[in-house]
Amino acid sequence: MESIRKLLSILRESPASSQYRRDFLLTWDKSKEQLDFIISLAEALRACHRHNVSLRSFDSGLAVSIFRDNSTRTRFSFSSAANLLGLAVQDLDEGKSQIAHGETVRETVNMISFLTEVIGIRDDMYLGAGHTYMKEVGEALADGHEQGVLPTRPTIVNLQCDIDHPTQAMADLAWLKETYGSLDALAGKTLAMTWAYSPSYGKPLSVPQGIIGLMTRYGMNVRLAYPEGYNLIPEVEALAADQAGQSGGSFEVTGSMDEAFDGADIVYPKSWAPFSVMQTRTELLRARDDAGLKELEKQALANNAGHKDWACTEEKMKRTRNGDALYMHCLPADISGVSCKEGEVDGSVFERYRIRTYREAGWKPFIIAAMMFAARFENPADVLAGFVNDPRPRRARPEAAGRA
Amino acid sequence: MESIRKLLSILRESPASSQYRRDFLLTWDKSKEQLDFIISLAEALRACHRHNVSLRSFDSGLAVSIFRDNSTRTRFSFSSAANLLGLAVQDLDEGKSQIAHGETVRETVNMISFLTEVIGIRDDMYLGAGHTYMKEVGEALADGHEQGVLPTRPTIVNLQCDIDHPTQAMADLAWLKETYGSLDALAGKTLAMTWAYSPSYGKPLSVPQGIIGLMTRYGMNVRLAYPEGYNLIPEVEALAADQAGQSGGSFEVTGSMDEAFDGADIVYPKSWAPFSVMQTRTELLRARDDAGLKELEKQALANNAGHKDWACTEEKMKRTRNGDALYMHCLPADISGVSCKEGEVDGSVFERYRIRTYREAGWKPFIIAAMMFAARFENPADVLAGFVNDPRPRRARPEAAGRA
Amino acid sequence: MESIRKLLSILRESPASSQYRRDFLLTWDKSKEQLDFIISLAEALRACHRHNVSLRSFDSGLAVSIFRDNSTRTRFSFSSAANLLGLAVQDLDEGKSQIAHGETVRETVNMISFLTEVIGIRDDMYLGAGHTYMKEVGEALADGHEQGVLPTRPTIVNLQCDIDHPTQAMADLAWLKETYGSLDALAGKTLAMTWAYSPSYGKPLSVPQGIIGLMTRYGMNVRLAYPEGYNLIPEVEALAADQAGQSGGSFEVTGSMDEAFDGADIVYPKSWAPFSVMQTRTELLRARDDAGLKELEKQALANNAGHKDWACTEEKMKRTRNGDALYMHCLPADISGVSCKEGEVDGSVFERYRIRTYREAGWKPFIIAAMMFAARFENPADVLAGFVNDPRPRRARPEAAGRA
Repeated sequence: MESIRKLLSILRESPASSQYRRDFLLTWDKSKEQLDFIISLAEALRACHRHNVSLRSFDSGLAVSIFRDNSTRTRFSFSSAANLLGLAVQDLDEGKSQIAHGETVRETVNMISFLTEVIGIRDDMYLGAGHTYMKEVGEALADGHEQGVLPTRPTIVNLQCDIDHPTQAMADLAWLKETYGSLDALAGKTLAMTWAYSPSYGKPLSVPQGIIGLMTRYGMNVRLAYPEGYNLIPEVEALAADQAGQSGGSFEVTGSMDEAFDGADIVYPKSWAPFSVMQTRTELLRARDDAGLKELEKQALANNAGHKDWACTEEKMKRTRNGDALYMHCLPADISGVSCKEGEVDGSVFERYRIRTYREAGWKPFIIAAMMFAARFENPADVLAGFVNDPRPRRARPEAAGRA
Repeated sequence: MESIRKLLSILRESPASSQYRRDFLLTWDKSKEQLDFIISLAEALRACHRHNVSLRSFDSGLAVSIFRDNSTRTRFSFSSAANLLGLAVQDLDEGKSQIAHGETVRETVNMISFLTEVIGIRDDMYLGAGHTYMKEVGEALADGHEQGVLPTRPTIVNLQCDIDHPTQAMADLAWLKETYGSLDALAGKTLAMTWAYSPSYGKPLSVPQGIIGLMTRYGMNVRLAYPEGYNLIPEVEALAADQAGQSGGSFEVTGSMDEAFDGADIVYPKSWAPFSVMQTRTELLRARDDAGLKELEKQALANNAGHKDWACTEEKMKRTRNGDALYMHCLPADISGVSCKEGEVDGSVFERYRIRTYREAGWKPFIIAAMMFAARFENPADVLAGFVNDPRPRRARPEAAGRA
Repeated sequence: MESIRKLLSILRESPASSQYRRDFLLTWDKSKEQLDFIISLAEALRACHRHNVSLRSFDSGLAVSIFRDNSTRTRFSFSSAANLLGLAVQDLDEGKSQIAHGETVRETVNMISFLTEVIGIRDDMYLGAGHTYMKEVGEALADGHEQGVLPTRPTIVNLQCDIDHPTQAMADLAWLKETYGSLDALAGKTLAMTWAYSPSYGKPLSVPQGIIGLMTRYGMNVRLAYPEGYNLIPEVEALAADQAGQSGGSFEVTGSMDEAFDGADIVYPKSWAPFSVMQTRTELLRARDDAGLKELEKQALANNAGHKDWACTEEKMKRTRNGDALYMHCLPADISGVSCKEGEVDGSVFERYRIRTYREAGWKPFIIAAMMFAARFENPADVLAGFVNDPRPRRARPEAAGRA
């Protein structure tokens, strides 16, 4: 409980960087103070959970999830976070047909929000669409609230869009803080966010973008490496460079995985589709051009196959600081000889870091819960203090617990 | 809180028209006192929600939903209502095969009800089937309870059947009460429930039937308008006429949309399939006659196309009282130039009333919650008084709220 | 409440046969004291529910369900049990693709368990696979917990595997206890678990195996009857014989339904596929050999058709003790002239016992809740005492209830 009280005092002394009723769409929309606050809050929520302190903040209320792409781990993280705070999850199942934009979005969003506190959205299939859709949902919610339709404006949590994957990147940041002891300790650390070969194609850009868009704010030396033609959205690369300059870190782009790994403290080797392929894919998906999509997949896979040497092998790991950089991954990884013949990472490398990648992932429910908590309470630190100072056990009722 | 106390005293002084453990299947099965009670209760529940008064009435218990037709807004309204009272929603997914009648219904209904408080059912596809199915479910529940299988008899809430759509009609009535200040103020108002052109076919009759079956009990002058051949179930039209006579209102059927609109206070233009088409469709669906269904659709759409002038245009709106009758719709509407080329309503008309149709829809979760609440507690007004007189905040725990 | 206190004192005086954090996979993994404890606990939980005593033991937490085969009644029983204790159900939907074994199971299991208390699994399609899968899940959970990934090791409840169906068998045992007054009263009773004809094929072996694997521990004379070639897993038949010897009961296998019924106190006529057919079927399913599966089904149905006289007819019932043995079934039954032309049981026999089969089924939610409760609290009797001695109403808040 001592650790919780310490976190509480940190939270109570945080600058009043209110995120009350604000969406969490992109980490770079938030001030560093706001991000730090979410990280500390996530730590406090996790500590409360581990100490059997109930965090049930809502006696009723819905957390709506809109998954426009498959998901298991993010779905469970969202459900867990909502449940931790007392919200019930209700999926909006759009069926096979896509929800049209404009009129229909505006209406549907209001119809599902009469008693809703939070809306989690995953929409990462179409480049140029996911973030735009979330903004559109947000405007409809704001309009509905202002016009007296909705008693409160629900908060949107971006569960992955075409641009950013903030719940992943923030969970990764919390994991780095846990690993290195503090956020300050990250300054000067070298992180290699590198492309890696995978036998599939079309993986979103949001994870690498999320990582370079967040870690460059913490004084880290971020290296982004990919084969020619596999660049990310240019604006996000530019943003990362800007931020690195401001935070006292650095940002370089290289065409060599070896260079990126040399002396790195942290490596994050992960496949993604080139920006240009994603653009073409989006056009083809919209045109429902199945033949075109097949042709694109064929070409893209052939391109990928030219870069099978972009793999996190034991050899490559030896190049990192002391040969034992921290390996990170958002999971699931394409593991050579395990989940595929040749993939992103050697089986032996992955196995050595497997449990650590699970612990990395374990931050996500608490990060999402923190995003919800910070957005739904005007003074989240005070509300949390209420939970901690007069704790109710999460499991077993007080009198029962007392006797047991 | 003053407004809540006022509603409470109205509820406590209501005649003892108990709806304890009674289903809500058709509004015309209920006395006017019972309907008024539900409306006042819905207002009170909404006021509690807006004042952060928790309405969590159940520490556990299931609210089972059976959707035999697609639904988004009713599904969310049902989920929200159940959650508001502390019940967890569990869908009965019948898969592609329909649950057979007789033996199977009797058994399934008991199997899903051991710890169930409420069952919400939508079954509006087959004329002559939905209401019958709900009665069958009700009998199986009563039998199971009497024979000691079920600890309590769950309550059925009709979420739309072939005859009535009581949660919609009651939400509409609550909206009219909000708009005009009281239920008494509705007497003498003219409501035009009219058919309107839509580029689709096969829409259920339950909305127009629900409206004429409910509004004729409140002294309103209800006009039902449709092109030749688009009549509703004859018994429901007859019932509406009877009720209008008793309530001091009136009920007329006309073949002219213009006539219906002339001087109307309220207009409700909405497409539906003719009763005879629905009868044929039901037979074809049962016979799985796909060719027949296609042919029927073709004919029906051709018929519809002969009535494109049945649209709620700016022109038509000018005919209403002061040119600004209240436009109502159960949503989603077929909006000309927005969701379809030619539809039920002009884009400009709809836009003017859009937010009001959202607020109309916003009553539905509270109407459903009121139906549940009235049916699950013997003295709902007393139980509600407990919530109001010693309020527990819906969001944030008391001690936390005190500090925040 | 008197009955609850009596059950409480029985539970508190039970030998300390802790099931804390232990899975419930096979009844024969448990000591008789542990099984008796679960039965008494289920009775106590049911009594609490009937007396409006809240059993909400968790302020938050997930109960994950993994259904690798269709289910309605077990799904609702699991949901009801979870909800009764305050847990929210989250389905893991594996989609059409099966979750591969090894690496993927290990990872997925951790990813869905960060805030999970219980995982219910149904996996009965493949002989030799279901139980193995559950063990694999259990090992992954234990590993995740030991390595600091999971704050607690969730408990697995077997909702039906290829070997046992413990929630069914235990519910059946609770029903027998209710019927005969005590578990001791079962000693010496004759139970005929017999194969019966059904127009379908491929029904799992887990119900008959569960019954002979459990009832032989209670001093019952268990008769297992089936036509030649319809045997169960040999090891389970051997286990039943062993256990009968130890408990003072008996176990015989016979090829005659008449013999099994002669003088029986209890009959449980139910169809299943022969062990050898299930073995072949498993191989064909794995090989995705659709033609082979069709051929197997054809052969198996033809075999079945040779045994249409294996039906629980009025005639057969006359052979039982006083002609009125207790008829049991896990439901749904294949009822001759009702759900099929010729099936497991005569319509008139089933109708006479129908309500009793429903009451039998009604134990399942409480058995599952008891399994969860015993596994999640170190001293379940003490925790339960807390609920009983200072009861909170399950429906309506205290102050409200006080006034109502």
